[in-house]
Amino acid sequence: MNKIRLGMVGGGSGAFIGAVHRIAARLDNHYQLVAGALSSHPDIAEQSAKDLGIASERSYSSYIDMAEAEAARPDGIEAVSIVTPNHLHFPIAKAFLAAGIHVICDKPMTCSLSEALQLEQLAKQSGKLFVLTHNYSAYPMVRQAQQMVADGLLGKLRVIQVEYAQDWLTSAAEKTGNKQAEWRSDPKRSGPAGCLGDIGTHAFNLACFISGLQLQQVSAELNTFVEDRALDDNVHAMLRFEQGVRGMLWSSQVAPGNENGLRIRIYGSDGGLEWAQEQPNQLLYSPFAQANRILTRAGYGYQAAGEHLVRTPSGHPEGYLEAFSNIYSETAQAILETRAGATAEQALANSLLPGVSEGVDGLKFINAVIQSSQHNGKWIAMESVNE
Amino acid sequence: MNKIRLGMVGGGSGAFIGAVHRIAARLDNHYQLVAGALSSHPDIAEQSAKDLGIASERSYSSYIDMAEAEAARPDGIEAVSIVTPNHLHFPIAKAFLAAGIHVICDKPMTCSLSEALQLEQLAKQSGKLFVLTHNYSAYPMVRQAQQMVADGLLGKLRVIQVEYAQDWLTSAAEKTGNKQAEWRSDPKRSGPAGCLGDIGTHAFNLACFISGLQLQQVSAELNTFVEDRALDDNVHAMLRFEQGVRGMLWSSQVAPGNENGLRIRIYGSDGGLEWAQEQPNQLLYSPFAQANRILTRAGYGYQAAGEHLVRTPSGHPEGYLEAFSNIYSETAQAILETRAGATAEQALANSLLPGVSEGVDGLKFINAVIQSSQHNGKWIAMESVNE
Amino acid sequence: MNKIRLGMVGGGSGAFIGAVHRIAARLDNHYQLVAGALSSHPDIAEQSAKDLGIASERSYSSYIDMAEAEAARPDGIEAVSIVTPNHLHFPIAKAFLAAGIHVICDKPMTCSLSEALQLEQLAKQSGKLFVLTHNYSAYPMVRQAQQMVADGLLGKLRVIQVEYAQDWLTSAAEKTGNKQAEWRSDPKRSGPAGCLGDIGTHAFNLACFISGLQLQQVSAELNTFVEDRALDDNVHAMLRFEQGVRGMLWSSQVAPGNENGLRIRIYGSDGGLEWAQEQPNQLLYSPFAQANRILTRAGYGYQAAGEHLVRTPSGHPEGYLEAFSNIYSETAQAILETRAGATAEQALANSLLPGVSEGVDGLKFINAVIQSSQHNGKWIAMESVNE
Amino acid sequence: MNKIRLGMVGGGSGAFIGAVHRIAARLDNHYQLVAGALSSHPDIAEQSAKDLGIASERSYSSYIDMAEAEAARPDGIEAVSIVTPNHLHFPIAKAFLAAGIHVICDKPMTCSLSEALQLEQLAKQSGKLFVLTHNYSAYPMVRQAQQMVADGLLGKLRVIQVEYAQDWLTSAAEKTGNKQAEWRSDPKRSGPAGCLGDIGTHAFNLACFISGLQLQQVSAELNTFVEDRALDDNVHAMLRFEQGVRGMLWSSQVAPGNENGLRIRIYGSDGGLEWAQEQPNQLLYSPFAQANRILTRAGYGYQAAGEHLVRTPSGHPEGYLEAFSNIYSETAQAILETRAGATAEQALANSLLPGVSEGVDGLKFINAVIQSSQHNGKWIAMESVNE
Repeated sequence: MNKIRLGMVGGGSGAFIGAVHRIAARLDNHYQLVAGALSSHPDIAEQSAKDLGIASERSYSSYIDMAEAEAARPDGIEAVSIVTPNHLHFPIAKAFLAAGIHVICDKPMTCSLSEALQLEQLAKQSGKLFVLTHNYSAYPMVRQAQQMVADGLLGKLRVIQVEYAQDWLTSAAEKTGNKQAEWRSDPKRSGPAGCLGDIGTHAFNLACFISGLQLQQVSAELNTFVEDRALDDNVHAMLRFEQGVRGMLWSSQVAPGNENGLRIRIYGSDGGLEWAQEQPNQLLYSPFAQANRILTRAGYGYQAAGEHLVRTPSGHPEGYLEAFSNIYSETAQAILETRAGATAEQALANSLLPGVSEGVDGLKFINAVIQSSQHNGKWIAMESVNE
Repeated sequence: MNKIRLGMVGGGSGAFIGAVHRIAARLDNHYQLVAGALSSHPDIAEQSAKDLGIASERSYSSYIDMAEAEAARPDGIEAVSIVTPNHLHFPIAKAFLAAGIHVICDKPMTCSLSEALQLEQLAKQSGKLFVLTHNYSAYPMVRQAQQMVADGLLGKLRVIQVEYAQDWLTSAAEKTGNKQAEWRSDPKRSGPAGCLGDIGTHAFNLACFISGLQLQQVSAELNTFVEDRALDDNVHAMLRFEQGVRGMLWSSQVAPGNENGLRIRIYGSDGGLEWAQEQPNQLLYSPFAQANRILTRAGYGYQAAGEHLVRTPSGHPEGYLEAFSNIYSETAQAILETRAGATAEQALANSLLPGVSEGVDGLKFINAVIQSSQHNGKWIAMESVNE
Repeated sequence: MNKIRLGMVGGGSGAFIGAVHRIAARLDNHYQLVAGALSSHPDIAEQSAKDLGIASERSYSSYIDMAEAEAARPDGIEAVSIVTPNHLHFPIAKAFLAAGIHVICDKPMTCSLSEALQLEQLAKQSGKLFVLTHNYSAYPMVRQAQQMVADGLLGKLRVIQVEYAQDWLTSAAEKTGNKQAEWRSDPKRSGPAGCLGDIGTHAFNLACFISGLQLQQVSAELNTFVEDRALDDNVHAMLRFEQGVRGMLWSSQVAPGNENGLRIRIYGSDGGLEWAQEQPNQLLYSPFAQANRILTRAGYGYQAAGEHLVRTPSGHPEGYLEAFSNIYSETAQAILETRAGATAEQALANSLLPGVSEGVDGLKFINAVIQSSQHNGKWIAMESVNE
Repeated sequence: MNKIRLGMVGGGSGAFIGAVHRIAARLDNHYQLVAGALSSHPDIAEQSAKDLGIASERSYSSYIDMAEAEAARPDGIEAVSIVTPNHLHFPIAKAFLAAGIHVICDKPMTCSLSEALQLEQLAKQSGKLFVLTHNYSAYPMVRQAQQMVADGLLGKLRVIQVEYAQDWLTSAAEKTGNKQAEWRSDPKRSGPAGCLGDIGTHAFNLACFISGLQLQQVSAELNTFVEDRALDDNVHAMLRFEQGVRGMLWSSQVAPGNENGLRIRIYGSDGGLEWAQEQPNQLLYSPFAQANRILTRAGYGYQAAGEHLVRTPSGHPEGYLEAFSNIYSETAQAILETRAGATAEQALANSLLPGVSEGVDGLKFINAVIQSSQHNGKWIAMESVNE
């Protein structure tokens, strides 16, 4: 195949998530990075482009120029990765969709539900792919879990316990020059949610992805335990899903000993599943009234489909970068389908990729949690959250 | 020392928890079982007494006769263990306290808060010990955790996540002749709480015990997932402790793959702790910004005090029966102190034993959770729950 | 039933293993301790007896007197527990067997193979039970493993990897007043083997017990890593079992981080098993070409038979003391059978109890390992080791 | 920087390890794959080259042509990856070194010690880099372990326990069309060692790498448990390292339940370390007489140096592909140093890369183990193994 021509906005030298996206794009060799507006600082943008082998005429100082110029080139980019701070996701995505370029966007999709809803409209009208990198949903054993639930192996679902705990904001890291901590605790760049938006939405997305269920109502409390911090650093929520399924979500960035503790347990009338991101190659499967079983990536009983989900034999651990790469490989597949004539809608429907509706759901969840917390834990219906 | 003369009410052949109490009493050799009203069925009572080496004249057909007769004997029992179904705890405890006999009572203390409050009064007036067998609080590594929190090693506490999950009621076991399931799902014998009273209260007690904090408010939802079941089989609750500490409690008996999954995590400004009942000899200690450490029973850094907390060297696993026995050994110590002239109040104050106030707290917690669940998760103040 | 009248030699206050034996005897309530020669120091013996409620006329200052006097009493002891340092096991066991009293003896059985072979003869001639407390073989999940192998679930056995690692002798603890370290590193009291005799024999016994196989040959190297230590503190051995099964044994008391790390893995053509003493309630079962399963004590798929093997439901962890107690409960059962007319041989054949032949095997193993180590790892046939 | 021009021999479509090498080369973006002799089947070679974006004139039908042609081009490859079956490693490496091209070679280096020794000479004379992809040595926590040992944190080393267990050859997979199983059990393509050469050498390499010690003597037994298999499928060995350090090595491909179970434990007078490949982001550190600590990749206390060793924050698991990529990234660094004027020897000395001497050691180890096994476990000195 011809590799997909990819551009990137954000991700200049020093940025963490930009480098992750580039590795993800390279791993399975479906993309070539040929253009970028890598930084709002022209010097950094230029040097970063050079380091990455991007031709100097395709290193742009603004994403607007980039969208315009690339759309005009016969060899212009087919897709763009957006890896800037959260508040810029919306205008950038808007610009590239308008220019007829597929968008791969880091999460959260936008800083407000209003923007998210606009973007949903724009994406639909554009006829282009919009992929949101909820990378955790692309771990092979998460896919295995999703399929087992869909196949009915757990029977009727009943309870979902999901959590995402970290410890790196236990003290006021944002005051000590930690860039990651700074923008994540700054409402101007992160939006109104701290821990909630940064990692709570990953937990929420994972619960919905594996269960296949919509959240209906949430009762929540946000707390900020570190003095003078502007945003929440701990989230407690009770969840009411459709079909009478009940759950809890805990997300924290002040839980010492937890590095990146995303973990889910899901229980039904016929069995249970348990998965933890830090040991991602295992899935505990508990068929009711039988011994617990340890399913493994590419091991006996593994069914998750897709070449990228079986890169290496079982026992050869894969991790975060491979899961992230799975999103890119599946997006590449979807782009190939559009090259071959499929609509974006069709191509996405053939995949398990998170997209604009997951982005809207994430923003609704953020709003609902904030609203509930402001009203002393009142149950908030997701459908009532419109802006 | 002279062994303590012990009686038992309930626990005839076929009962589970009675046998556990007897092992617990025997393990460290502080008691001799000399009297009993072991069953409401005279035949079972008599045969059980015989099997246990209780003299036939001290095998009683009613606990009322037993309390009276034993109180009158010069060699009468000094303490009684109450191991009947829940609804009988109150009248039996009342009778033995009135007869001047120390009481060791299985939990929950009573079936209603009203009874619990009466019993609290009676216990105080009696001048006798009342010990409630919240056995999980006596695991050595739980004691270690309690001490570390008290010593300030976690700094200011912030978050408590506690859970107790089982799977044995995933299907309608109460309809298949399972006696344990039958009485636990029968409001007449168990009171108004199912999973909540049976195991949720253990989780609640553990959180309070280790943290040393009072719960102030709870917002909860009870669910019954198995059709036609009369009581709840799943508990979700958000917790507000004093000092701004926040937490969550999940308790379930319909979570396939969980055998007896009591687990607690507690986080403060300076560190975290994690303990799970099924691997009870370990305690994960996470001093903030340092590598996680695995503390072990009787291992390096272990400080929990008391001979019964170091029966065997580290690496020789102890379990449920030893933890239960720790309650009995500490009660024996308290009884010896009263023999030596201490008041019951003084003797209890020297110990970490759960007693009548933990029993009252448990009933308040049950009532508050039920009340919150009936009012769509409204926050209920523990102090507002009076009857 | 009438409780079995038990005596004890050794185990005065301050001793570790004596207390363990007493708890083990008490736990299931089959014994009453009525006589003892608890220490070679008369004061300690007397005080210890008093503490244990042994009548003063049945507290003896010598085991010879005790054997004679108890044999002469109508209410004399039926069984004796020998919990002295190793070098005294032989003469004491001899005296009590000669007096017609069943013997429960701590391991290793004797300090020399010559004594072990004599004892084997004496035990057979005596018509009395001789039980060796290889307690690890009585863990419920070890019994489960033994049964699964016997039932053929692993197919034809191929490989056995067994190890027993501790760390408490990493430095010269025997020079710092540690009594346990002192006698264990003193050839006069421990015999010619250090780590090998103390824990290596447990590993050897466990491998034979679960596999049901005889060891045929061993090639080994003993090392003493701590300066001036008189006995080995590390054992490396390659094992040739009957039927072409091959294995390795590692035993060490100088492996930092290992508390009591007895662990076995056993593999056959159809599956594998893995068990570790520090998490004794689990057994990993790997049917070939299927997902690994976690079997648990009293959980789904658990088959080990005997009331003492199901004291508590699954998820209620049992440990070292319960396993030790299982030996005592099974011995009680065997004694009851002899009361009812069975020969000792018949009663033992109905059980899985370790006895005099396991004791002889243990001494042969010690001798073979020492001999191999002295001859640069030469393969030594077990059958060639006669004295 | 200018990306390094890389060629590949072997690794046409369908091959496993070739794809792994290519991902490893891509991940950190230091290489561009521009030439290849990807298969001995011309059609597969051509198609594979096309799929990989290699220009058709640089897709060769023989490695000899490729070495010659590439050496002659001004833009010829600077390095070649050799990913063929084992028996071809030698002639191919020889050809490329002779052509002045750096070599990255899969292990084992050759099929015979004689070839290995020749290659060692050739590599030294060539002035080019020869890197052997003992990828497991490049896991971040293995590097951490190596550094801790070198820093003396374990004190004087004493014991090394290393193992590598798999289960995929438990039955005769080589007879069922499994290509991987076929060539690995064929002496013509794999050399005289089966499991020993395939994975046993990885275990050996890991033990030497972390400890920094030379193996002096080995006593071993090879077994073939599956009927009609031509090569060993199980390795048992006792190890004598320099400085009196003793160890054991177990390697097996017939151990059901083990996927890719490479695991090492290393103990010294002051502490111990434990690492397992399937949970590679953790390292258990046991400072003697302190609680065990869990060190993590990029976590608190992590010291391993190099940008590629900290791609993602702690808690974001990395795995097999990243470790493999670390070898490539370090090789890139060494190549850059040679571009800048360093000799190959200097560039390698600045790195921890495995090279030709590790390859020779691996072959010596294979020969020594085979020789020992053929002589009933006789201790064989590594220095005595010359051809």
